[in-house]
Amino acid sequence: MPRLHWEDFTPGQVTDCGSRLVTRAEIIAFAAEYDPQPMHLDEDAARATPAGGLIASGWHTCAILMRMIADGFLLEAASMGAPGVDEVRWLAPVRPGDELTARGTVLSTRASRSRPELGLISMLYEMFNQAGTCVLTERCTQMLERREVSAVAEAARA
Amino acid sequence: MPRLHWEDFTPGQVTDCGSRLVTRAEIIAFAAEYDPQPMHLDEDAARATPAGGLIASGWHTCAILMRMIADGFLLEAASMGAPGVDEVRWLAPVRPGDELTARGTVLSTRASRSRPELGLISMLYEMFNQAGTCVLTERCTQMLERREVSAVAEAARA
Repeated sequence: MPRLHWEDFTPGQVTDCGSRLVTRAEIIAFAAEYDPQPMHLDEDAARATPAGGLIASGWHTCAILMRMIADGFLLEAASMGAPGVDEVRWLAPVRPGDELTARGTVLSTRASRSRPELGLISMLYEMFNQAGTCVLTERCTQMLERREVSAVAEAARA
Repeated sequence: MPRLHWEDFTPGQVTDCGSRLVTRAEIIAFAAEYDPQPMHLDEDAARATPAGGLIASGWHTCAILMRMIADGFLLEAASMGAPGVDEVRWLAPVRPGDELTARGTVLSTRASRSRPELGLISMLYEMFNQAGTCVLTERCTQMLERREVSAVAEAARA
């Protein structure tokens, strides 16, 4: 049974999602597959753009944050997915060698009206680089199983 | 000089962003790197989840859309990046073998108040699977160079 359920998240709670080093190789690999704009794909070409050098695709930064959220707590939670993303702001460039950290803050929680087995949490995620600059904010709603429902389902399976 | 500038985008205009086949291998590769939840990572584990089988990470779907936008028009445009994403809705699962199509609709355009060389376009992107089901909507604002500014800069470089 997962360690974390909807009831474990309360407004104001902050979760540290660890850190991750961003490499030149992964910036280029992501860009080659998903976002082949010059500032993401090639160091020389990137120098000629307003970015002034290679920067990660904003979508790559979002994907890195997803991994940090997964490792930070989501893989231990009874996650039921997410309906989408409410807002992303790319505030500063992410460059090769950056050491990113992230944290998630619970903004609010509510029970689902239509699905009694679910609860929703509204989260604000913030990512920072090694200089303490906030490079990304993301607001989203996540769905989690409620503990008593999860326990009943577990007992039924046993 | 890029083919497309801010002036080339007008409200209501719809751009076809082509199609893309989603493979099992790429769903798993993306998940292994960025979103290792069971429903994205492993067919057997995914069958035991509410997804009922392997589905692409929502962030993977966003990344695929980014590639379709790049190939659809952005690589031919004087793009100056984007401040973020205003909303994403993951409306239906994306599964191995899905053939996705996408289109972008210009919702509105405006000149930048603070940077006269730039214009902004507010876009709605929609992705569909081969059954015509809308799997994702995304709203975002993109920054583009204005044509006369781009022409002056080009002349200065010449």
